[in-house]
Amino acid sequence: MIERIAILGTGLLGTSVGLALRAAGFRGSIVGWNRGAEGAQTALASGAIDSIATDPLQAARESQIVVLATPIYSILDFMEKLSGVLGSEHLVTDVGSTKAQITAAAGRLFNTPERAAFLPGHPMAGKERGGAALGDAELFRGAVWLFTDDATWQRSPHSAELVKGWREWVAAMGAKILDLDPERHDELVGWVSHLPQFVATALSALLQEEVGGAPELHDVGGRALHEMTRLGSSPYSMWRDIALTNTEDIQAALLALEERLAHLRENLRTSELRAEFEQANRFRRE
Amino acid sequence: MIERIAILGTGLLGTSVGLALRAAGFRGSIVGWNRGAEGAQTALASGAIDSIATDPLQAARESQIVVLATPIYSILDFMEKLSGVLGSEHLVTDVGSTKAQITAAAGRLFNTPERAAFLPGHPMAGKERGGAALGDAELFRGAVWLFTDDATWQRSPHSAELVKGWREWVAAMGAKILDLDPERHDELVGWVSHLPQFVATALSALLQEEVGGAPELHDVGGRALHEMTRLGSSPYSMWRDIALTNTEDIQAALLALEERLAHLRENLRTSELRAEFEQANRFRRE
Repeated sequence: MIERIAILGTGLLGTSVGLALRAAGFRGSIVGWNRGAEGAQTALASGAIDSIATDPLQAARESQIVVLATPIYSILDFMEKLSGVLGSEHLVTDVGSTKAQITAAAGRLFNTPERAAFLPGHPMAGKERGGAALGDAELFRGAVWLFTDDATWQRSPHSAELVKGWREWVAAMGAKILDLDPERHDELVGWVSHLPQFVATALSALLQEEVGGAPELHDVGGRALHEMTRLGSSPYSMWRDIALTNTEDIQAALLALEERLAHLRENLRTSELRAEFEQANRFRRE
Repeated sequence: MIERIAILGTGLLGTSVGLALRAAGFRGSIVGWNRGAEGAQTALASGAIDSIATDPLQAARESQIVVLATPIYSILDFMEKLSGVLGSEHLVTDVGSTKAQITAAAGRLFNTPERAAFLPGHPMAGKERGGAALGDAELFRGAVWLFTDDATWQRSPHSAELVKGWREWVAAMGAKILDLDPERHDELVGWVSHLPQFVATALSALLQEEVGGAPELHDVGGRALHEMTRLGSSPYSMWRDIALTNTEDIQAALLALEERLAHLRENLRTSELRAEFEQANRFRRE
């Protein structure tokens, strides 16, 4: 039933969605738009999209499914613009990393019987660097793809069918679908995704000050150091929007970790250290 | 010239030393001792050692090279015992993770022309779990092997030759040798090894409290979470001795990270966030 898809934003995630759809057997058209021409050309050359749109709103109008794969504030901008030009024959979905603001906008701008449907989504997959050139048909295999749909939204039967169809394509890309409340989503990813990122950033920045300028010392840390700082490569351009749209959950998680580190620091010579290691071991066993 | 080696402690590192020596072409005898019988049997079965000693001091006396591969306090105990029974025909070396206390003991108990030589060593290699069964002939390939030797020590010509020979075997195992002052060693590993470990422990323990009991949520974090908490599996039994023998360096590193995280938490909505990401990016590029 789904034959025409538009991907707005052909960075790592947008390009990977196109490649994964093709790998899963999608035979319809995939039109792509990207702010920078190079990313669109790379996506086209890789086969992730089969044409480049110059006008993203027109490309959206001519498609059944619109996948928003830009940074979060750009997703919110597109939502404002698209709600006026799309109708109940369209489904818009996104891959943004925070969901409370996007889901609130989806309720305000979409999801009535006359309007387009909007299904807020968030695949838990990525790489420490972005860009179309790293696009990967297997990126979503085994990964969790979160949706923060709202059962109270009233959609047209047609757009409800598109929602069902998109969920099936997500499963066909190899992802495991999990539905969450949007506030719970942002709290949860604050702990399991945003906190690890900001820890890696702080640790990498600190080590740059302490042992930077002596690159041979990086080797001393070996695999463990490499792993614990890999996310230090993540781009600010992506994380700025996450920090701005999930500030309070991230602050709460960071403060909790600061307190935990202080507790550990004060107990390096007491039996509390054992308790902390055992608690950590439990997390890894489960 | 080196034909008889004793490995005291056939856990992950001791067993890997035996396997790596064999892989590098060592054809002499390797006798092993381990506190638990099972670890010694596993090392024997793997070919890391070719006999099991029941008396570690006798095994040391009958060898030219004695490799201490037990936890740090056990290394310090062995140093006390061995200094009385070995002479200038022996070299003792170790693989302990902190070096200031061990190197001080080496100066006090060894390294005169009449006594055995002691070469303090620390291969920067390991796995998040220990034990002979994980022993790996390739564990040291490409890893840094630190020594904290002291140029003022007066050794017999014979034991000086053994030191040179052991360094050659370490290189033959594929490790990159780096010589450091012992205090600088402990400070450096405090930053690049101990800090990442304690961060992973604190993060894992915190997440066990926050999302433990809902193992399906582990999947949500994906590869990034898995990496950032892998070291949460590390055993307390090994890290206790590190915490006790490098307390101040670890405390300084933990405090610095707490302050860095607080700075980041207070600047999630300011341009300081960009500066922090750029500093982290620099660490990873170098």
